[in-house]
Amino acid sequence: MNRRMIARILSMVLIIYAVLMVLPLITGLIYGESVGSFVISALITAGAGLLLLSFKPRTRDIFAREGFIAVGLAWVLMGLFGALPFVFSGQIPNYIDAVFETVSGLTTTGATILNDIEGMSRSCLFWRSFNHWIGGMGVLVFIMAVLPMSGEHSMHIMRAEVPGPTVGKLVPRARETATILYVIYGALTVLETILLMLGGMSFFDALLHAFGTAGTGGFSTKNASIAAFDSVYIEMVIAVFLVLFGINFNLYYFVLIGRLKEALKSQELHWYLGIIAFSTLFIAAGISSMYDGFATALRHSFFNTMTIITTAGFGTEDFVHWPEYTQMLIVVLMFVGASAGSTGGGIKVSRVMLLFKSAAADISQIFHPRSVRRVQMDGKRVDSSTARAVYVFFFIYIATILFGTFIVSFDGNDFTTNFTAALSCISNVGPGLSRVGPTGNYNVFSLFTKAVLSLIMLIGRLEIYPILILFSKSMWKKK
Amino acid sequence: MNRRMIARILSMVLIIYAVLMVLPLITGLIYGESVGSFVISALITAGAGLLLLSFKPRTRDIFAREGFIAVGLAWVLMGLFGALPFVFSGQIPNYIDAVFETVSGLTTTGATILNDIEGMSRSCLFWRSFNHWIGGMGVLVFIMAVLPMSGEHSMHIMRAEVPGPTVGKLVPRARETATILYVIYGALTVLETILLMLGGMSFFDALLHAFGTAGTGGFSTKNASIAAFDSVYIEMVIAVFLVLFGINFNLYYFVLIGRLKEALKSQELHWYLGIIAFSTLFIAAGISSMYDGFATALRHSFFNTMTIITTAGFGTEDFVHWPEYTQMLIVVLMFVGASAGSTGGGIKVSRVMLLFKSAAADISQIFHPRSVRRVQMDGKRVDSSTARAVYVFFFIYIATILFGTFIVSFDGNDFTTNFTAALSCISNVGPGLSRVGPTGNYNVFSLFTKAVLSLIMLIGRLEIYPILILFSKSMWKKK
Repeated sequence: MNRRMIARILSMVLIIYAVLMVLPLITGLIYGESVGSFVISALITAGAGLLLLSFKPRTRDIFAREGFIAVGLAWVLMGLFGALPFVFSGQIPNYIDAVFETVSGLTTTGATILNDIEGMSRSCLFWRSFNHWIGGMGVLVFIMAVLPMSGEHSMHIMRAEVPGPTVGKLVPRARETATILYVIYGALTVLETILLMLGGMSFFDALLHAFGTAGTGGFSTKNASIAAFDSVYIEMVIAVFLVLFGINFNLYYFVLIGRLKEALKSQELHWYLGIIAFSTLFIAAGISSMYDGFATALRHSFFNTMTIITTAGFGTEDFVHWPEYTQMLIVVLMFVGASAGSTGGGIKVSRVMLLFKSAAADISQIFHPRSVRRVQMDGKRVDSSTARAVYVFFFIYIATILFGTFIVSFDGNDFTTNFTAALSCISNVGPGLSRVGPTGNYNVFSLFTKAVLSLIMLIGRLEIYPILILFSKSMWKKK
Repeated sequence: MNRRMIARILSMVLIIYAVLMVLPLITGLIYGESVGSFVISALITAGAGLLLLSFKPRTRDIFAREGFIAVGLAWVLMGLFGALPFVFSGQIPNYIDAVFETVSGLTTTGATILNDIEGMSRSCLFWRSFNHWIGGMGVLVFIMAVLPMSGEHSMHIMRAEVPGPTVGKLVPRARETATILYVIYGALTVLETILLMLGGMSFFDALLHAFGTAGTGGFSTKNASIAAFDSVYIEMVIAVFLVLFGINFNLYYFVLIGRLKEALKSQELHWYLGIIAFSTLFIAAGISSMYDGFATALRHSFFNTMTIITTAGFGTEDFVHWPEYTQMLIVVLMFVGASAGSTGGGIKVSRVMLLFKSAAADISQIFHPRSVRRVQMDGKRVDSSTARAVYVFFFIYIATILFGTFIVSFDGNDFTTNFTAALSCISNVGPGLSRVGPTGNYNVFSLFTKAVLSLIMLIGRLEIYPILILFSKSMWKKK
């Protein structure tokens, strides 16, 4: 195993991450806050990066295993170093709490342990939300976009960091693909910031909510989240941008190069929009008697459908008071998640499609053993190894949720809280039901549970394997 | 499709089922109850069977599809006709309630809608529990044991009715296999009845609880279930027999023909016993402070571990008051269930083993693309189509639970009640958590929900496909 090359990748990640800490530092300076905590944190992070830089790789070749390990370790390290400013500034005194909040940011989960968000400093609020933006598209993808890396092997890293059953290279070179993704990501973020400011938000609030939307994270600057702005316009801007950030970014690339028709043919897009339409109407019908007219119900239903299916987790209404069957649909949306290749979490729409399509084909095979039925997606045949990988992924996903629920239940909360907390964390949603509902808080859990949930968030964001490999024998074997 | 042969199989099932109704009828006569309801029900059931007999099959050949359809329809019809005595006797006036109770009996679930079990007539109590015994080993397997059927094709029926990822024919002929299974089943039931009588139970109570144990159903004759007898001896007899009925019956056959060593080598047996040992100790440790000494905690822990993992669902203690983490382990045991080829429900230990082993192999493949790791069970290589079938099974299992929870949630109960009701029904356990806990009752649900849960119990007992095919296009196509 090429450990030196892993060290090199990690050193780059830490140095870039230290550089990114300058942005909240500047924010602090602008608002006249003391920024010593960010200076120290950036120096420590950069120092650790420079230390790792001393291992010179003998060869730059890496394979799948190194790719997974590098990505897994990079994210764990970011969680550990990113927590420092919160601790040094005294804003989140306990280190485990701070790691939970940072990982929740990076993984775009948006679950918080804070009781008073508005009491935080501007610099810390910026750092919290900025982590959504960093984690949404992936920091290693970012590094690939800005730094030269040995071409072919960087695909191993991209495959490990970008969500979805398969990674389609847009262009032959991974670096260009990464650049294109980040340009689209940045442009949409800027556009949303402007539109939110037009709705009366301050630049600070608009930018941070755009970070939260772009990464589908869900951290807000207000205790009452989006409800604090009490604006239909702002809710609709965020909801519509959530629709956009939940779509596979490859489709935007197709649109940019003039292949709009191809983009519109995507089956995953059809399912994604279909699920949104169905859920919005179904929930609106279910809650209409609770609100002043169907239009208001539709507004809340659309916003909350979007915030859940894209796994952002912004809050406007406390849906734990909605009818049980609407809550159960919300739970199902937490499983499904957004499109592959988007910034959203969950199992992903395309995987859910594959699960159903392959199951239908296999059942048909059982009933008619002599027939052959092939599974197709977007007109192309899905080979059996892809389908199998999706089934294994689904099994580990469910097993992790059950295991997580078991561990979390040692804190003594009810089953609904525990189960939806584990589900919400692996799907990177944020809120769950019962005590972790939209107005609830992850502070109901012990420090040990918060550490476990942090790990589950990372498992969800990195789609299992980069974290799993850190606990496997492969990690520690020389050969 | 050979519809006439399906009609022939169904007519045999109904006639046999009508004949079996004579046993509760005799019970009623012994206890001086009016038995008119059983006479009428038996006549109607037999009449329907004779009507179907008028379709003469042109050929006796059937294939996989006919096997699944015949088994699916047979169980639905038994549920519909078996409910008649409860309605006609006025003991369960509502037909849907009666179907729920009958299906719960047949599928060996043991979920009840009755508030006062002890107020029931002896004949109805007998019929209720006897359905556990009929459903435990399978009525079509029984028919194969007693009636001549065209040899090779009967395997299609056996495969559809006997639980487990694969059906091992013990002997070349399916009929002999069926006979051997029923002889073992009967002998163990008789032995348990005797042992329970030695503990002070009446013959009636002993026999009915033996039915409930043998089929791993869980219906009792007492409102307080097994707790009513307040006897360590009786609890231990039932718990030990649950261990026995949760083991693959093929192993008993190996023991009978002197291949004890081979039987003891079964990996599924090791996992099954291992899970029991772990759960018993873990739960005992968790609840020991609630009881008078560790021995008492161990007694309750062992009994409840067995009643849940074998999916019987007898009650001694109300575990909804136990610590959350012990309840969560109970939920996990509800998923796992007993061994393949036993009378227990759930996903089955061997499937769980395969899920973990195959996932480990596939993950290893991801990390080391050039390595080849094979999955083995009992020293034999598991081919990839078997593993794939297990993954598809797992997906449909989870999807059915989520869909069931969604439907059930329209009644407005809490998520814990809804989720564990759907889980408990598909795994044929009986009790769940919250409002459907050991002292709870399925009467909290609407008639529509009870009908849906009845279907889910059938899906669980017949392992999905025989019920699924009834809703598929295959069912209605001529060709």
